[in-house]
Amino acid sequence: MASQPKNVGILAMEIYFPPTCLQQEVLEAHDGASKGKYTIGLGQDCMGFCTEVEDVISMSLTAVNSLLEKYSVDPKQIGRLEVGSETVIDKSKSIKTFLMEIFEKHGNTDIEGVDSTNACYGGTAALFNCVNWVESASWDGRYGLVVCTDSAVYAEGPARPTGGAAAIAMLVGPDAPIVFESKIRASHMSHVYDFYKPILDSEYPVVDGKLSQTCYLMALDACYKSLCNKYEKLEGKQFSMSDAAYFVFHSPYNKLVQKSFSRLLFNDFLRNASSIDESAKKILAPFESLTGDESYQSRDLEKASQQLAKPLYDEKVQPTTLIPKQVGNMYTASLYAAFASLLHNKHNTLAGQRVIMFSYGSGLTATMFSLKFNEGQHPFSLSNIASVMNVTEKLESRHEFTPEKFIEILKLMEYRYGAKDFVTSKDCSLLAPGTYYLTEVDSKYRRFYAKKAQENGLVNGH
Amino acid sequence: MASQPKNVGILAMEIYFPPTCLQQEVLEAHDGASKGKYTIGLGQDCMGFCTEVEDVISMSLTAVNSLLEKYSVDPKQIGRLEVGSETVIDKSKSIKTFLMEIFEKHGNTDIEGVDSTNACYGGTAALFNCVNWVESASWDGRYGLVVCTDSAVYAEGPARPTGGAAAIAMLVGPDAPIVFESKIRASHMSHVYDFYKPILDSEYPVVDGKLSQTCYLMALDACYKSLCNKYEKLEGKQFSMSDAAYFVFHSPYNKLVQKSFSRLLFNDFLRNASSIDESAKKILAPFESLTGDESYQSRDLEKASQQLAKPLYDEKVQPTTLIPKQVGNMYTASLYAAFASLLHNKHNTLAGQRVIMFSYGSGLTATMFSLKFNEGQHPFSLSNIASVMNVTEKLESRHEFTPEKFIEILKLMEYRYGAKDFVTSKDCSLLAPGTYYLTEVDSKYRRFYAKKAQENGLVNGH
Repeated sequence: MASQPKNVGILAMEIYFPPTCLQQEVLEAHDGASKGKYTIGLGQDCMGFCTEVEDVISMSLTAVNSLLEKYSVDPKQIGRLEVGSETVIDKSKSIKTFLMEIFEKHGNTDIEGVDSTNACYGGTAALFNCVNWVESASWDGRYGLVVCTDSAVYAEGPARPTGGAAAIAMLVGPDAPIVFESKIRASHMSHVYDFYKPILDSEYPVVDGKLSQTCYLMALDACYKSLCNKYEKLEGKQFSMSDAAYFVFHSPYNKLVQKSFSRLLFNDFLRNASSIDESAKKILAPFESLTGDESYQSRDLEKASQQLAKPLYDEKVQPTTLIPKQVGNMYTASLYAAFASLLHNKHNTLAGQRVIMFSYGSGLTATMFSLKFNEGQHPFSLSNIASVMNVTEKLESRHEFTPEKFIEILKLMEYRYGAKDFVTSKDCSLLAPGTYYLTEVDSKYRRFYAKKAQENGLVNGH
Repeated sequence: MASQPKNVGILAMEIYFPPTCLQQEVLEAHDGASKGKYTIGLGQDCMGFCTEVEDVISMSLTAVNSLLEKYSVDPKQIGRLEVGSETVIDKSKSIKTFLMEIFEKHGNTDIEGVDSTNACYGGTAALFNCVNWVESASWDGRYGLVVCTDSAVYAEGPARPTGGAAAIAMLVGPDAPIVFESKIRASHMSHVYDFYKPILDSEYPVVDGKLSQTCYLMALDACYKSLCNKYEKLEGKQFSMSDAAYFVFHSPYNKLVQKSFSRLLFNDFLRNASSIDESAKKILAPFESLTGDESYQSRDLEKASQQLAKPLYDEKVQPTTLIPKQVGNMYTASLYAAFASLLHNKHNTLAGQRVIMFSYGSGLTATMFSLKFNEGQHPFSLSNIASVMNVTEKLESRHEFTPEKFIEILKLMEYRYGAKDFVTSKDCSLLAPGTYYLTEVDSKYRRFYAKKAQENGLVNGH
C-alpha cells in the first residue's frame, strides 16, 4: 500500500475557456454606459462566454481530457474526481458522472468523489477534499483530480458585464510543485443572501451587488485576522503581507481584487504589523477609529489605502490578474484562473515562495489558505504547467463577437435552459481541435456531446 | 496541535423525520392498486412527508440543533460541517450556510465544508470528506459534522409510494464507537440516466424505474467484487458474506434491499466462496452460466436466491430495515436511517462486529464500505446513540394522514416550489418541541424559520 504522503498539493493544471468573447470597451459603448465604467470601474478587459454548443459539462470534459493527455496521466491512475460548480444543469445527477465517460472507456469506475456546491466556493471545497483524501487512511496511492467549471451569465442590467466562463482541472497528489501549508488556513462562513439562485428555471442569479461586495470584504477581514492568529500561534511570530510573495483573490471583477488587497494593508495597519511604515501609518491614522461598517463604506479610506497599496499590488497581485480580466468571472474557476495567471507570468521565479489564496462563495463561505512552491519534476514542474496551459495562445486565438451577437446567444440560451428535445447547430468551427461540444438534448432531457477531431483527423464522437 | 487521530468514525447520531405520515396499505387502496402492491411488492409499511411548514432546511436545523444539545457538544467544537442532499431549494446557496445560524450565535464561523451532490449518495460523500479531514494534515482537533437531508416526492404514478423525508446528523471524530475500516472500500461510478432532475422548476425527478433497479444491482455487484478483491489482497484470505455481521443498503424501498442481499449470495456462489454450502450450490448451479444482463432479468434466479438468502437476511439485514420501511425513501438519509435502525435494534450486541454499508446514488455513484463497532464512552457510546435517537417514540408519536390530505399537501408544495412572497400557516401543533419550521418566503425569495418552543416554554424564533 501507499506510504505516508508528503508535500501534498497540485501536481498539474489545465485551463479551458471558450474561444468566443466580447471586449468590455465595446459592450460599454453598446450599453450606453459612461466611458470606462466596465474597463476602469470594474477593471475588466474582455468577457468570455459559451455559445450554444458549449456548457459546463463540455468545458469540463475538455479540461479533464486535455490534462490527462498533456501530462500523460493514465486514466486508471485517478482514484478520486471531484467537481466544483454552481451552474446547475441537473439538480440530482452530478457533473462528475458525465466525466466518468472518460474513465469508463479505460475500465476505471472505482473513482470516489461527487460535486461540491456553494456559489464560487465549490472548487475550493473539492480541492480541499482531494488533498485530505491523499492524506487520509483511505488513500489508495492514486491521484485526485479536481474540476472547477462554471458559466456566469446575468440578466440585462448592471451585472451583465461581470459574466465569464471556464473550466479548470487540477491533478492532486504527493511530492507536488504546489504544496498546501495545511495549518495556515482560516474560514469564515455565514448565512446571508448576497447572491443566490432561487429562481429555478432561470440561469440568472438574484444579486444584491452592494451587499455582496461588503460580505466579500467582511469575510476577507475575518479570514485574514484568523489566519494571522493561527500563524502567530504556530510560528511564534507575527504574520503580515510581507510574509507572502503573492496574494490571489477570487475575482468577480478586478476592481474588487484591488479593494481587497488594500483592505489587507488596512488590516496590517490596525494590527500594527511590521509591513506598515511610518508614513503609511500617518496616512491611515484618521481611519483607525472607524467601526467595521463605516470602514467598508468610507471612500476616503478606500482611496488612501489603494494609493498606499499600489506599489505592493503591482508586485504581489498584478501578476495574478491576467485571465480574470480577460475572461471575466468564472465563478468556481475564478480563483484558480487567477492562480493560473501567476504560474503563467512567474513560473521561473516561484520556487520557494509562498502565495496566499482567498476563496469566496456567496451565501456565504470563504477560506484563506497558503500554498508554497517547489520547482517540481517533469511533467509536474511549474514550467511545464505554464507551458501546458499555454495561456497566451489561448487568449490570442479567441474570436471577438459583437454585443448584438452576444445578446442573441444569451436569448437562445435562456430559451434552452432546462429545455428538452433540441439539436444544436453542431457548429464547432471556432473550437480548438480536441474540444467537446453539445450536439443534442433528447426528449428525455439526456444530453449528448461530441469531440472535435484532433488535427490528425481522428474523430472521437461518443 | 492535535496528535495523529486513531479510530476515526461516527461518534454520535441524531435522526429527525416529520411527524406526518401515511400508511402504505391505505394509499394502496386509495390508488386502486392491487392488495399488497406497496406493502409486499415494494415492502413498505408507511411513508413520512413534509407538510408546508417543513423542508430540508428546517429538518436539518432540527437534527443539528438536537444533536448538539443531546450530546452536550459545544458549537465552538465543530470545525467542519458538510451537507449531503439532492433536494434543491437554491441552486447556489448551500444548505450548510443556513445551518451556520446555529454556530454564528456562538461566535464560531470558522467551519469548513459545503454541500455534496449526487442523488442519494451526497451524504456518503460528505461523511467520507469529514473522516478524511480528521485524518488529514489540516485537521485542527475539532469535530466534523455531517448532515443528510432530503424530501423525496414523486409525480402521480407508480413511484409516488416510494417517497419519504428525513434529516440525519452525524458527529465525526477520533476514538469513535463506529470506526471506518478505510481500506475495505470500493466504488463504482458511471454515466447513466436512471433517475435525474432536469426539470428545474419541478421538485419531481425523471425516473426510469426498471433501469434504475438494474443500475443499482450492477453497481452493487461491481462494488462487492472490487471490495472482495481488495480485502483479499490486504488480508491474504477470501472475503464472503460470513465476514460481516450486518449488511446495510441504501433503501429506496425494502424489496430492493431483499434483492440486493440475495444478489450478494449469488456473487458468493459465483466466486465459490466458503459462505455457500453444497445444497445452495446445487440450487444455484443452473444460473451459473447466465450473462450479467440475463442474471438481472431472471425471475427464477431472483426467487431461488431470495429463498436461499432468507435465513441470513433475517439475521444480517432485517434489523436494519425498520426506519426505511416506516418512513420511506429519505434519499441521502436512507442508508444512514437503515444504519440507525441497526443501532436502535442491536446496540447492546454490536461491539466488535463489522457492518458492510452500500451507498447508491443514481446517475450513478456507488460505494461499498466497512465499519467496525466499539462500545464507546459516554456520551459517545452505542447505547447512548440509540437512546438519543429514541426511534420507537418518534415513530409511535406520528400522525397518520389520509391520502386525500397527503395529495392536497403535495399540490400546495408543487405550487410553492421555487415561489416567493408567501407565508405558511405557521401551524406547528403536530411538531415536537424544539422543531424548526418554515414561516415565510419573502419577496426576495429569502426563507425564514422559527423554532417551536421547548417544553419549558422558551421560544427561540430567529
